[in-house]
Amino acid sequence: MESAKLTELYETAKSWVFEAGEVIKRSFSDELNITYKSHAADLVTDMDKGIEQFFIDKIKNKYPDHEILGEEGYGDKVKNLDGTVWIIDPIDGTTNFVHQQLNFAISVGVFHDGEEKLAFIYDVVRNELFHCKAGEGLYLNEEKLPRLEDTTLDKSVIGLNATWITPNPKIDHQLLLPLVRKSRGTRSYGTAAIELAYVACGRLDAYVTLRLSPWDFAAGYILIKEAGGIISDVNGNAVNVLDKTSIFAAKPSLHQEILGLISPGTSANGQ
Amino acid sequence: MESAKLTELYETAKSWVFEAGEVIKRSFSDELNITYKSHAADLVTDMDKGIEQFFIDKIKNKYPDHEILGEEGYGDKVKNLDGTVWIIDPIDGTTNFVHQQLNFAISVGVFHDGEEKLAFIYDVVRNELFHCKAGEGLYLNEEKLPRLEDTTLDKSVIGLNATWITPNPKIDHQLLLPLVRKSRGTRSYGTAAIELAYVACGRLDAYVTLRLSPWDFAAGYILIKEAGGIISDVNGNAVNVLDKTSIFAAKPSLHQEILGLISPGTSANGQ
Repeated sequence: MESAKLTELYETAKSWVFEAGEVIKRSFSDELNITYKSHAADLVTDMDKGIEQFFIDKIKNKYPDHEILGEEGYGDKVKNLDGTVWIIDPIDGTTNFVHQQLNFAISVGVFHDGEEKLAFIYDVVRNELFHCKAGEGLYLNEEKLPRLEDTTLDKSVIGLNATWITPNPKIDHQLLLPLVRKSRGTRSYGTAAIELAYVACGRLDAYVTLRLSPWDFAAGYILIKEAGGIISDVNGNAVNVLDKTSIFAAKPSLHQEILGLISPGTSANGQ
Repeated sequence: MESAKLTELYETAKSWVFEAGEVIKRSFSDELNITYKSHAADLVTDMDKGIEQFFIDKIKNKYPDHEILGEEGYGDKVKNLDGTVWIIDPIDGTTNFVHQQLNFAISVGVFHDGEEKLAFIYDVVRNELFHCKAGEGLYLNEEKLPRLEDTTLDKSVIGLNATWITPNPKIDHQLLLPLVRKSRGTRSYGTAAIELAYVACGRLDAYVTLRLSPWDFAAGYILIKEAGGIISDVNGNAVNVLDKTSIFAAKPSLHQEILGLISPGTSANGQ
């Protein structure tokens, strides 16, 4: 994709992300806020569907040959990353959306012929847009952020939900205990998109989760690579962005250090 | 304490909380931000001490007979809640302060002759002040919030750090597993003050932690009682706000439900 075309796509996508954010913000105002309290589940469903449809309408109208993979399933059956593919989560963090009207995000990642091109994670209520155009670095709103630097586990704050360190079907939870015991602390915000954005901008040093779908992590995957972080599955293998997968993202040397603890058989191979 | 005097104390304390917030915000700007990156531990120590001293100077000057219990230890040796006692954490969430310059708070609780009178938890960066004057309800900034309503664990989001559901010296971690398995999810923000404020305002339905000092929870304790929530230790016993303690705060019926799970021997007695 030539540079001018990518820039045009970036500006267009960004304006749609902001526009979608405005729709969500309006839904919190006055009357709807009351409806929301009593029919929280309905509203979140309507909002998820509405925002996904908003993106699909915009994209199909302006770029009819682009493909769209979205959480609500109104997009395409995307089989591969040939051409331009948008991967969209209209509201990541739906439980937070219902309980807090906070700590949720719009997540939009764009690939072209298999390469990461654009990413937007928009924390609507906090007015924080984490975004990038491949090769130009990570931005938080208008500010360009520094590339991620190496760190060590004993100086790190780790994104890790309690689910994964209690007995669960996805992983031997004992493997993850060193993340609790050897780090400065763990955090859990209840939204993979924001947790990945926080790794990309350095607010978290690493993030581990065992069960994500493409729309949960696609934009974060692009942001973290653009910021100089490492993102893989929990065994250190490359991620297929069209499949459900575990996700393990971290600053470069920390990725290697943690991998040696949580996936000892694979650490020697790196990712 | 008569009403006019309490109102004057409330207005004064609030203005000091905002003033202290401005000092912290200024420390993040430009030059200091660079110093901060390389000497994070020093800055946080200086800032903690500086903000505590700020409150002590203000209080001792205007109210020389008031007593002050603060994290940094520059206040008084407070033995009881006779007279007027301020309990202050200048920066709750110091790890977040260092790592994120986010998710920390100024926490100020005021008691008079053993009674809860005023509380302020100020999320400085997010510009959210959770506050109350006893008997007048909980406020978030200028907005009065509704009293907490009953809920059930299966519909709840719980504040719970990973530390407490892995083997630890404070509690049989197995007792807390139902909070992970039976709730809608757990969250951990790394600041007890904000986690307690979130329970008070309903963003979290409950919060459990095993190791807090008076300055970590005093303001939150007042806010939660003012909001109609229940706050006790993890066994359901009343909390002594001058001692280190575990803390378990929740919406009313949820407190009873969770207590039956995590402290089965005591649930029949209530708290």
